Order: sequence, then structure tokens, then C-alpha cells
Amino acid sequence: MAHSFDVGYTAEPFLTLCASYPDETVYPPEQFRVEWGPIFHRGRLDGSARVLVIGQDPAQHETVIRRILVGEAGRRLQGFLAKLGIATSYVCINTYLYSVFGSVKAATARSPALVDYRQRWLTALLVGQKIECVVALGQAASSAWASWKATPDGQGVELPFVAITHPTQPESSSNNDKAKLAAATKKMLQNWNAALASLQGKVAHPDVAVPLVPYGDAWGPNDRPRIPDIDFPAGTPRWMRENDGWARRNGSNALAKRRNITITVSAGVVR
Amino acid sequence: MAHSFDVGYTAEPFLTLCASYPDETVYPPEQFRVEWGPIFHRGRLDGSARVLVIGQDPAQHETVIRRILVGEAGRRLQGFLAKLGIATSYVCINTYLYSVFGSVKAATARSPALVDYRQRWLTALLVGQKIECVVALGQAASSAWASWKATPDGQGVELPFVAITHPTQPESSSNNDKAKLAAATKKMLQNWNAALASLQGKVAHPDVAVPLVPYGDAWGPNDRPRIPDIDFPAGTPRWMRENDGWARRNGSNALAKRRNITITVSAGVVR
Repeated sequence: MAHSFDVGYTAEPFLTLCASYPDETVYPPEQFRVEWGPIFHRGRLDGSARVLVIGQDPAQHETVIRRILVGEAGRRLQGFLAKLGIATSYVCINTYLYSVFGSVKAATARSPALVDYRQRWLTALLVGQKIECVVALGQAASSAWASWKATPDGQGVELPFVAITHPTQPESSSNNDKAKLAAATKKMLQNWNAALASLQGKVAHPDVAVPLVPYGDAWGPNDRPRIPDIDFPAGTPRWMRENDGWARRNGSNALAKRRNITITVSAGVVR
Repeated sequence: MAHSFDVGYTAEPFLTLCASYPDETVYPPEQFRVEWGPIFHRGRLDGSARVLVIGQDPAQHETVIRRILVGEAGRRLQGFLAKLGIATSYVCINTYLYSVFGSVKAATARSPALVDYRQRWLTALLVGQKIECVVALGQAASSAWASWKATPDGQGVELPFVAITHPTQPESSSNNDKAKLAAATKKMLQNWNAALASLQGKVAHPDVAVPLVPYGDAWGPNDRPRIPDIDFPAGTPRWMRENDGWARRNGSNALAKRRNITITVSAGVVR
């Protein structure tokens, strides 16, 4: 049985971008988990992408797989893209190369070295490419887009753009309160429906022509499709490609927790 | 600062090999940790390799990085290659795609599907390529070589071959006894010196022309050089590329241990 996989960073300008990433002199270790290394992207780098997604920052599953948006947020995004008829023709980068630790200072978020490197990625993915719309997940991503749009390269590119609520905002805002979670999910899906409506007809070359089916008030059975195998590095185990929850930051204090990622094979895989 | 990295599996026949690996129907889960996925290689796949190394099976550090021989055994091998004047012009594959769990049954080791897949890699790396000698680490690797040499492809390739003691055999044979470890290390380095002597002059195109400097009775200060950055996937953190010991299989029982890999950032990296 064949398992497609992501070939990664094989051509310019991505070879140079992945070899010359900003380090802890640009991303302060007090604000970012620079010790886990930069994580660059998920999706197509061969020019076939039709939708560009800008996320925020990688978490622990992303750190193990070394691709972004591979956990629950990624599956929810996958569902959003599917509603646009996009199965694999997308590319995602994050606002930040490293996982945010605590919060990001405004001065850091604006720092030229941090911003310039991201602009190089955006220019590579947008100028002279086939992208037909841009989706930002959350506020930092929205600012990243605005910042690029203000550059000479960005001024030359006119594309439909939507900023949508970050896919795991309902969880992070509801503090394990089920009623709050349901309300926040409903609110987010309304926000996503509005974005889908505004993008209707704008993706001229979908992978599959689909009628626009909006979200309901809660997650439907097909709203969190699998992330395709072609987004994962060669040999990635199946359970890592399915549901997240298999990577945790454990530790008895803040430092121990920061230094640790514990990977546990999903239940039922090893018998 | 630029960080070179391994571009991975970008061309045939490696694209097909990495998409069509044998699964648990070929590698029985009682004998292999198939749940962690196959791990294919380390080194050059662009035809520039001059030395082919056959190792045994990947362990936990290899599982995280998804390249083989990246821990202590890898650094020792790197030193062996350096004594041949080989800095980066090598390619390593393992006898087994998955980490051995317990021991491998003879019938499994001989099974056609397992062997045939490995033969395809060996043929890809050896027939019509620039390899000038072959190094096998340990007995399983030595058998893998013999098995390929018996194929029609193998019969057509005449190359100097050495089977050397596996780089971490001293540790695995000495059970934390320091005197035994020193004796086993000395014995292994003698074995490696004999191999180096037999290969002298056989690597016609080394990366650096070096006089043959044999090992002493114990590890010397330059005998375990760093594995070059170009062997690691893009973005791999520096401490993962240096010394191993940062990945452990923890757990209160055999199943928990099997399902777990705990990654701990090396001491001193996060302050």
C-alpha cells in the first residue's frame, strides 16, 4: 500500500528560507520556545496551492511532526478548506516560527528581523503564484497579513482575504466549561460561515466543485476531516496523522515542563 | 547564520521506496516497534555517496528525528568515516526499517517481503552509483549485505566490504561494568582498526585526503565528531544534533514503555 508524503523543502526559495531562519537573537526565549527549533509550513510548496492560510504558532504536536497545524486546529481548518472545495491545494505558514511561551511583546512582534523573514515567505508564496484567497487564523495572523500587504510586494497583490476566529479559540476561551465551549463554538462557526459566504465563488480552481454547505451550531460529523497523508513527512506513523492528544508537555515545574515533550502512542495501536 | 539540512526523499527511486514501505504484515509487531513508523536512511541520496553503511535498526532518537544513526552510534560511525577521509559523502540504511522489539526470528529476517524491500534500496544505492566501499555494523547488517550480494544485481557489483563490530556493542555487552566496557571498547577499536587497514586506499575519492590514523585503546578526543547538519531535517534543534540522551522510553510496565518516548531538551539549553 502506498503512503503519500510531503517531500518538504526541495527547491528555492524554500531551500534558502529553511537554511537561514531567525534564531533566539530574533525570537527571545522569554517569549518563544526557540529550543524546539523553527517549524515552517504545511501543504504545497510546488506552486499548486490555491489557498494560503496564515496560522499563529506551532504547539507540541507540530514540534514532533515538524509541520504546522497538524493537530485539532489543523483538522478543523481542513474542514473549512473542504467547504471551499480545497482538498490538498493549500499552503499554510504561521505568524511565528516558534511556539509562543506566555505572550509576545508588541515590540517583538514588530521587530524587523522577525517580520522581514515572514515577508520573504509570503512573497515566495504569493507573488507570481496561483493563490486565489488568503485565510488568517486569529489576530496575530491577521496583523501578519496586513503587514505584508503594506510592502511593495503586497501592494501588487490583490486577493480576497478573510480573518477567521482561530480554530481552537472555543477551547482556549471556555476553560473546560461545557456550556461556554458550546456557545463559543457556535459563535466561531457563525464567524466561519460569514467568511465562507464572503469567499463564495472566489476560489476559481477548487480541487472539487462543491456547493457551499454552511456549518451548523456545533461540529458536524464531517467537519473535521483527516489531514491528508501528503502533508506529513515520509514514514510518519498513522496515529500521528489522525487525532492529536499524543504529545504533552509534562513536568513538575515550569522549567521541567518547558524542557519536556512526552509522546504516547494512541490507545489501541499497540496491543 | 545558515543551517544546512537534509532535503530528504525528493527523487526516484526514493519517492516510491518511501511511499511503499512494508508494514506490520511484514514486520510483526511482536518483533518490531512498527507503531513508530519506518525510518529510512541518513546521508546522501543524490548519487554523491562514496561509502555505503548498513546499520541494524533505529532506536528512540532516530524515531524522533526520522533519520537513522543519529545518536551515539552515529557519532562513532562518523569518526570511523572521518578516518577514511569521508566527511559527508556517505549514505546509511538499516537492515530493519523499524526498531527491534526483543529479538528477530530467523524466519522473519529471511522473509521475502522484508528482504526484497531492502534489496531495492541496496540496488538503488549501489548499481550504477559511485559507492567505493561498504561497511556493515554488526551481524544482521553483514547478513543483509551477503543476501544482496547473492542477487543478480549484487553479483554484478564488486566492492570492498568490511563488517565491523556495532558501534554500541561495548555498552550493550558490558552491563554497566566499567572494566568490561573498557575491554570491549578496546576490542572493538582493534576490530575497527583492522577494517580501516583493509580499506586503506580503497576510497579513491575521499572528501579530504587524510593519513590513516588508527584508534587507540579507548576513545580519543576526536573520535566522535559531530554528525553534520546536512544529515538532519530542516529546523532540527541544535541539541538534537549534538549528543544523544534526550529521548527515553519511560513507563511503569512493558506496554507503557513501548507506547512512550519522552523528549527532554538537553541540560543548559533552556535557562
